[in-house]
Amino acid sequence: MSPSQIVNDFITAVEQKDVDTAVALLSDDIRYENMPMDPIIGRDAVAATLRMFLEPASAVEWPVLRETVDGSCVMNERLDRFKIGDGWLELPVAGVFEITDGLITLWRDYFDMATYQRQMAELTAGD
Amino acid sequence: MSPSQIVNDFITAVEQKDVDTAVALLSDDIRYENMPMDPIIGRDAVAATLRMFLEPASAVEWPVLRETVDGSCVMNERLDRFKIGDGWLELPVAGVFEITDGLITLWRDYFDMATYQRQMAELTAGD
Repeated sequence: MSPSQIVNDFITAVEQKDVDTAVALLSDDIRYENMPMDPIIGRDAVAATLRMFLEPASAVEWPVLRETVDGSCVMNERLDRFKIGDGWLELPVAGVFEITDGLITLWRDYFDMATYQRQMAELTAGD
Repeated sequence: MSPSQIVNDFITAVEQKDVDTAVALLSDDIRYENMPMDPIIGRDAVAATLRMFLEPASAVEWPVLRETVDGSCVMNERLDRFKIGDGWLELPVAGVFEITDGLITLWRDYFDMATYQRQMAELTAGD
């Protein structure tokens, strides 16, 4: 599989909330960096983080708006959408992925944390 | 010039705080989108915004860490650095650029606004 295919299979697995399939595409020493937060290192730690993010969502859609590739590096522009209760949380994201030997070794997402937090607070205000 | 050359000439002009040279590489109807903020539309509005961002900085460095290109689209990962007083504000950014007829028509930057605001407050606290 090409680096682009690997990244897009990973995103599809996330959309299906299939964490086992998703993390099988990551290297043992994967670095997952949400830029406003501390890096998360290792496949098991990423699996735990993904489950935490995905658990409150009844549906997940991460449409890729643009994708550019240079060798082992894939960058994409996405709108990560999470259905929370009756509404959708929508987070504009730019992602950077590095692929080595058919596995993702770096996943780095750029986004505005307050944009996420504000929507999450609104969507869970009634709970 | 290739789309990559146009984007990198634009960044070099920004680093030199040469706003006239920078905006000459933008289309009349340029859309400049800092994702946490409202879009800025038109060359004159972008020039005014750039002057506002660059004015407090005695030096500006926007090293490009990665760049990927697909036709008219250039994406890059940068560390935008601004020298403010005796310190450096450092903002991790992912940028998306669209180029048409040799001019940049879309400039979209993904970053965490709080990361910018927190450093700016620290660096100007003594003023």
